[in-house]
This record gives sequence, structure tokens and C-alpha cells, in this order.
Amino acid sequence: MTTAKRDTYTPETLLSVAVQVFNERGYDGTSMEHLSKAAGISKSSIYHHVAGKEELLHRAVSRALDGLFGILDEEHARVGSAAARLEYVVRRMVEVLLAELPYVTLLLRVRGNTDTERWALERRRDFDHRVADLLRAAAAEGEVRTDVEVRLATRLVFGMINSIVEWYRPEGRGAGEREVADAVARLVFGGLRAAG
Amino acid sequence: MTTAKRDTYTPETLLSVAVQVFNERGYDGTSMEHLSKAAGISKSSIYHHVAGKEELLHRAVSRALDGLFGILDEEHARVGSAAARLEYVVRRMVEVLLAELPYVTLLLRVRGNTDTERWALERRRDFDHRVADLLRAAAAEGEVRTDVEVRLATRLVFGMINSIVEWYRPEGRGAGEREVADAVARLVFGGLRAAG
Repeated sequence: MTTAKRDTYTPETLLSVAVQVFNERGYDGTSMEHLSKAAGISKSSIYHHVAGKEELLHRAVSRALDGLFGILDEEHARVGSAAARLEYVVRRMVEVLLAELPYVTLLLRVRGNTDTERWALERRRDFDHRVADLLRAAAAEGEVRTDVEVRLATRLVFGMINSIVEWYRPEGRGAGEREVADAVARLVFGGLRAAG
Repeated sequence: MTTAKRDTYTPETLLSVAVQVFNERGYDGTSMEHLSKAAGISKSSIYHHVAGKEELLHRAVSRALDGLFGILDEEHARVGSAAARLEYVVRRMVEVLLAELPYVTLLLRVRGNTDTERWALERRRDFDHRVADLLRAAAAEGEVRTDVEVRLATRLVFGMINSIVEWYRPEGRGAGEREVADAVARLVFGGLRAAG
């Protein structure tokens, strides 16, 4: 018999434990046993909440994806010049990444071995395309440089933003959320060069 | 008895097979058995060349690190304004990353579980600091913006450059090496915004 704590978990708190374990061990390397130990509840208690680890993965990456797609529905992402909308979206991407750090980290590490992972990759690609469309529109308006191909620029900008999950620590003494979002917005649009 | 191909390996070709396996399975997940199968030679033949998998890791990350540190000794990295030297180094980092793609990919995935991995992480930090110093010097000369903290800017620029290993495929129909290096140099220094 597993000696388990009284199950005071909600699907939400169980999810937060699962995401932490997935990020530490990798999704493939995580068993229900690992989740049970980390949560301090029995496997059967976990099965009371979810059908299995893939459901937890689905919920976790959905949270990250909903946060990202939600940006595109916000007023400043829909109204105004394409360049202004793009700048808004870039800044909000950083904010969502920092607000949902473990969930976005997991999303970015998904590799495509299961249906849920393939679905998440497909949704990420959709989001990338939406941002690339915005970049294309801003270039057509003459607000964004045209000497860097749109897909390549999108990849490099996403590369900069997504790399934040590798080093950002919310409890650290380093840069705060606002500082990171400002830095990304400045570098992505203005680059390093001092304004002439 | 292992039925092995005749051992026509040199330390160099064995290294290239090992790096591929490390990148696919992760260093921790790779056994001498995996290396033996991938190389098509017996384990004892591998031991003829190297003391074990950690020596292969050491050689592989050394190759990436030597490539990166070598940049700093090149004339254009030593002579000229700090901003021009920084721009040269950024472009050369992309070129070295693309030329030594599997080796740099492995270097960037090193986690710090063994002495060799910890040594590699320490050397990466040294390199980051050298580039951060250049950025600081360029800011002091007034050529680089000062409203983004130097370490944060360095992290974001490295994030953009290092993300290339996630999607660049040498044999692909996508952007070529020159196009990627140009794109990074333009975005890092000038940003997305069209020149007024």
C-alpha cells in the first residue's frame, strides 16, 4: 500500500506538480510513479483526476497555447498599423512566457512522439505563421525592413524570445519581467545600435 | 562475438559518429553499446581510440569551443572600434555555429552532470563574458544603446544566435549560411524596424 497524503489536490495543483516533473525529467522520462511521488499522492488518486500523463501534458501545453493565442485577440493586436500590432504582440509574448514560464518551457520542449505532442507542434506552427503574417504586413507597409526574409526573421525573433526560458528565474536577483519585456521589444525593433 | 566492420575509423570520423548519437539520444542516454552500433565497430575497437564516452564528449565540445574562442583571436575581433569588433564577432559566431553545427549543438545541450560538462559550461560562460565585455566597450564608445543592461542584451543576442541549431538544416532548401549570417547581423544591430 502506498502511504499517501490525504488527496487535497485539484486538477490545477496536480497540473502544476506534473509540469515541474515533466520539465525536470522530460515528458518521455516521466512515469505515473514519478508523478505520484512528486505529488505525494497515490497513482490511483491521480487517476481520479486524469486519464493519464498524456492528459496532463495536454492540459499543460493548452494553458501555454491559450495564453499565446489569447494575445492575438487582444485589441492592440487587432487594431492599428501592422508594425504597432507586431510590437505589441512581441512584448505580450514575452509577458505570457514569463507569466506561464513552466507551461511555455514545456511547450517549447515538446518533440512530437505522441498525438498530443504533434498537436502542440502544429499549434505552435500556426502561432508562428500568424506572427509571420503580421511581420509581412508590416514590411508591406514599409515599417519593417525587407532585406531579411520574413520566415527567417520570424525564426530569429522567436529564437530570442524563447531562449528566455533557458535562463530566467522568477525568484532571481536578475532582470525583472518588465525589464526583460522592454529589452526584447527594444532589441527586436531597434537592434543594439545606438540611435544616431 | 560482435560482428564488426573492419575498423577503418580515425579518431576524427569516430567523433563525428559519436556527436550524432549524443545529439539524438542525449549524452546521458548514450552507452558505449549505442556508439558501437552506430559506428558499426566493436566496443573494444572504440576503446582502441578513446578511454570512453566522456573523452568523446570532451573532444566534441572542445572542437566547438576552439571554433568560438578562435574568433576572438582573429584580426577584426582585435582591431577597430568595439562596435565593429562586436559586429564581426556576432557574424563569425553564426558562421562557426553553421560550420560546426553538430558540435555546437552538443555544446549548447550540455547540462553539467560530469566534469567534462561542467568544464564546458564554464568555458561557455567565459566566452559569453568576453562578448559581454565587447558590448560594454561598444556602449561606452556610444555606439551601442545603453537602455538595455549588458548581461541581458548578451543573453538575448546569444539566445537568437543559439536558436539557429534548433531549425537550421544544411541540406535544406531554406536559407543558406550566408543569408542566415546576414540576417542575424542585421537584426542584432539594426533590429526589424525599417531604416527611417
